[in-house]
Amino acid sequence: MHVVVPYAPDAPKTRLEPVLSERERSRLARVMLEDVLAAVRETGREPTVLSTEPLEVDAPVAVDRRPLTEAVNAVVRSQMRNSAAKSGDATGVAVVMADLALTTPEALERLFAPDADVVIAPGRGVGTNALVVRHPEFRVDYHGGSYLDHRRIADDVGATLETVDSFRLGTDVDEPGDLVEVLVHGTGRTPSCLREFGFELDSTDGRLEAVRSAEP
Amino acid sequence: MHVVVPYAPDAPKTRLEPVLSERERSRLARVMLEDVLAAVRETGREPTVLSTEPLEVDAPVAVDRRPLTEAVNAVVRSQMRNSAAKSGDATGVAVVMADLALTTPEALERLFAPDADVVIAPGRGVGTNALVVRHPEFRVDYHGGSYLDHRRIADDVGATLETVDSFRLGTDVDEPGDLVEVLVHGTGRTPSCLREFGFELDSTDGRLEAVRSAEP
Repeated sequence: MHVVVPYAPDAPKTRLEPVLSERERSRLARVMLEDVLAAVRETGREPTVLSTEPLEVDAPVAVDRRPLTEAVNAVVRSQMRNSAAKSGDATGVAVVMADLALTTPEALERLFAPDADVVIAPGRGVGTNALVVRHPEFRVDYHGGSYLDHRRIADDVGATLETVDSFRLGTDVDEPGDLVEVLVHGTGRTPSCLREFGFELDSTDGRLEAVRSAEP
Repeated sequence: MHVVVPYAPDAPKTRLEPVLSERERSRLARVMLEDVLAAVRETGREPTVLSTEPLEVDAPVAVDRRPLTEAVNAVVRSQMRNSAAKSGDATGVAVVMADLALTTPEALERLFAPDADVVIAPGRGVGTNALVVRHPEFRVDYHGGSYLDHRRIADDVGATLETVDSFRLGTDVDEPGDLVEVLVHGTGRTPSCLREFGFELDSTDGRLEAVRSAEP
């Protein structure tokens, strides 16, 4: 299976602005990307970064400056043509978002395992955090509520669809409230990155949160 | 396995106050409870409601007016004594929260399946949304960040622990932002209840949300 991880180095996580400087958000986005790449590699697959600009990273990089939906659909079209002559795990394209900081190889195996034409790991807020496409006519649409759009598109083209019920794949890191999940459940380098920034667990107001001792 | 679903009819979901009246919050809490009970029953197990006050519901009700932690620990102690003479699925106590409106029988089977002394489905915000206890010395502690406390307690008493990676079990319904998940992913009666209240999906500001046409 061809696994792509879309990444936009120039637009780092603006909703984390209240707690992280631009430089720190870039660093965090980069460390999360590397955690996702490492998790994919541990499943025995070689990920490709689909980046909006050239990037130095320990993985093949495909540069496509178009918006996410167009760039991913170009990959899907191209891979579906290549897949026609293949079978088994060689077929299909997986699209795994770069901000899934809780991802583990085990969670990804649950995404890769089902034999459906389309497999989706939905995220909070009805997003499509990770996706496998094995149907030649399926196309992505990453605008708001993409999980529902992808269900509809699969239905329109007659593709079978399965969803993966995963807290790890369902948690993308967008907002300050997501950081506590990284500190508690993260298994890669992202928790250490947050700790270097001064974040730690705090429960002074009764709920556990990631709070920062040193402000940016 | 003895399955208990804690429920507090007198304290309905205060963080939903911005979008629901007290009467509506009571109704929603009740419908979510019934969805959880139905999902447990579909796994072939008979749930007991552990309620802070007497309740008319289509399930056995155990009334315990003490705080959640004490009431659950009383059940755990009692069941662990009874379990000593049993084996297999007959052993152990499961504690499933009443506000897991996305619960399905499949998600619950993943909670019940592992053979560990303690099995936890963590929730957003480091809670313990669902739990199985099969160790005589393990006790719960449902204060802030209970997932981490439960890991520590399991470690202290030498209990093996597994976690269940489930978006459905990890999503409890506490805040207005959770309602969109119910409308999209709910499989029981809770989505209909929200629609009766006037909630519908809306993406006018780019993100999909549950918005209400008729205010309380």
